[in-house]
Amino acid sequence: MHKNKVKVGVVAPASRLEAATAERVSMLAATAFADRAELVFHPQCFLSSGHFAGKDEERAAAFLEFANDDSFSAVWFARGGYGAGRIAEKVLAGLSGAAKNKIYFGYSDGAFLLAGLYRKGYRATHGPIPHDIRRERGEEAVMRALSFLVDRSAATLEPTIDGKHPTAAFNLTILSHLIGTQFLPDLSGHVVMLEEVSEHLYAIDRAMFHITEIEAIRRLAGIRLGRCSDVPLNDPEFGHTPEQIVQHWCERSGIAYLGRADIGHDADNKVVPFGLLRDFV
Amino acid sequence: MHKNKVKVGVVAPASRLEAATAERVSMLAATAFADRAELVFHPQCFLSSGHFAGKDEERAAAFLEFANDDSFSAVWFARGGYGAGRIAEKVLAGLSGAAKNKIYFGYSDGAFLLAGLYRKGYRATHGPIPHDIRRERGEEAVMRALSFLVDRSAATLEPTIDGKHPTAAFNLTILSHLIGTQFLPDLSGHVVMLEEVSEHLYAIDRAMFHITEIEAIRRLAGIRLGRCSDVPLNDPEFGHTPEQIVQHWCERSGIAYLGRADIGHDADNKVVPFGLLRDFV
Repeated sequence: MHKNKVKVGVVAPASRLEAATAERVSMLAATAFADRAELVFHPQCFLSSGHFAGKDEERAAAFLEFANDDSFSAVWFARGGYGAGRIAEKVLAGLSGAAKNKIYFGYSDGAFLLAGLYRKGYRATHGPIPHDIRRERGEEAVMRALSFLVDRSAATLEPTIDGKHPTAAFNLTILSHLIGTQFLPDLSGHVVMLEEVSEHLYAIDRAMFHITEIEAIRRLAGIRLGRCSDVPLNDPEFGHTPEQIVQHWCERSGIAYLGRADIGHDADNKVVPFGLLRDFV
Repeated sequence: MHKNKVKVGVVAPASRLEAATAERVSMLAATAFADRAELVFHPQCFLSSGHFAGKDEERAAAFLEFANDDSFSAVWFARGGYGAGRIAEKVLAGLSGAAKNKIYFGYSDGAFLLAGLYRKGYRATHGPIPHDIRRERGEEAVMRALSFLVDRSAATLEPTIDGKHPTAAFNLTILSHLIGTQFLPDLSGHVVMLEEVSEHLYAIDRAMFHITEIEAIRRLAGIRLGRCSDVPLNDPEFGHTPEQIVQHWCERSGIAYLGRADIGHDADNKVVPFGLLRDFV
């Protein structure tokens, strides 16, 4: 349907985007894709209400406006931060038929929505977001997202994705906060990739304790560990690396630990579709 | 059985205790209660293994040694920190008959064990711990714990406890990490008191989103909010106080918000038995 032009709508389910950031991303898209891509930033991206890019109602309404608009082939989350979970129930209840025919793209806090969308049969994808352009080499990250959204470029994918196992990717803390909620999808048989940012090692250990306690999580095909960045100093020294922590809890709970994943809160963060790749082409 | 002398065993399920801290607590107990109380610090309290007061096996073994010893009338957690959850499964599986006849006393991270113990029918209590003596007015906190353990002094209790509703108290983040696990007790009909320390307002909001999503939590008699201390600066300004956050999520989920509770990570932290007071006298 959108073979000639891919129209991507950007909304901000959590924190607000700077107008200058949107401008940089638009220029990059125009330079790289000319008239093959159209990027539309919803004005809601730039609203402000305390921590959030506008009130819950405003963020949910903007999301639904683009999700339910058949002219968009993707809804791209402007930024993580915190707040997607607050609107997830309203968003999921308000989706119409047009919402099926597109891709929802973001990561980190955005996984509150990605999880719920995937659970309901929508196409969710973990990958870089407009705000990432502010990182060192951030244009690479944003180009990776756009190359997936416009061309489904295989080079954007997390390299261990084999097309056989369904996959999903989560910030570990967000997955912990999804446990028991109406938004957690059935991840049986999935390879789940986890990453973390700005959490102490004891908090990483605690979240791994939590998720591996859960029967539904024990039915994963396995866990891969992405990068854990900006880990604050543990006092005293925790005594285990993030990978040792993840291995420990996988072993204790009988989940296969499959090695590292090329995802994280950084410019190298790769694309991970939720489910099977074939549903995205 | 222990009418004349109350023997309290101290173990450290999470972080290690300083020997000098144990010494201060022992002297306080001796001064205040003379031969009516005997305080025994398990040598495990002073072990060190990275973040923890000894390895998981050492911490679990010390806990079980005192819990399964009929001569003790209480097991007092030396300190919070992090680590009680790591040994909870082993501890619960190893308790014998003598473990029933005593009180388990601690708070914060210790609630991983308190929750599991309460779920299994043991008497768990939220209240100050030996390490609290290091706070300003910390001797008051420690005296409060000892007065409950030795005399069941009613003056130590959180003042809204009415003896009619079962109660429980949790650090909010710990309760969030208990969701879906084998350690979460049935809290239907309970007044649950929540407190938090060193968490951002967005993280408090996120944990409230999480727990109030859960059907089992929606069956509470209500939530009371203790103190949220050492909240790091939220950038941007979050826009809501901890009490407004808790009220918001209670309202959204249909849980009664009952007002404040006199608990927190401070010297004023009051005693909250898990369940009904009558089971503690």
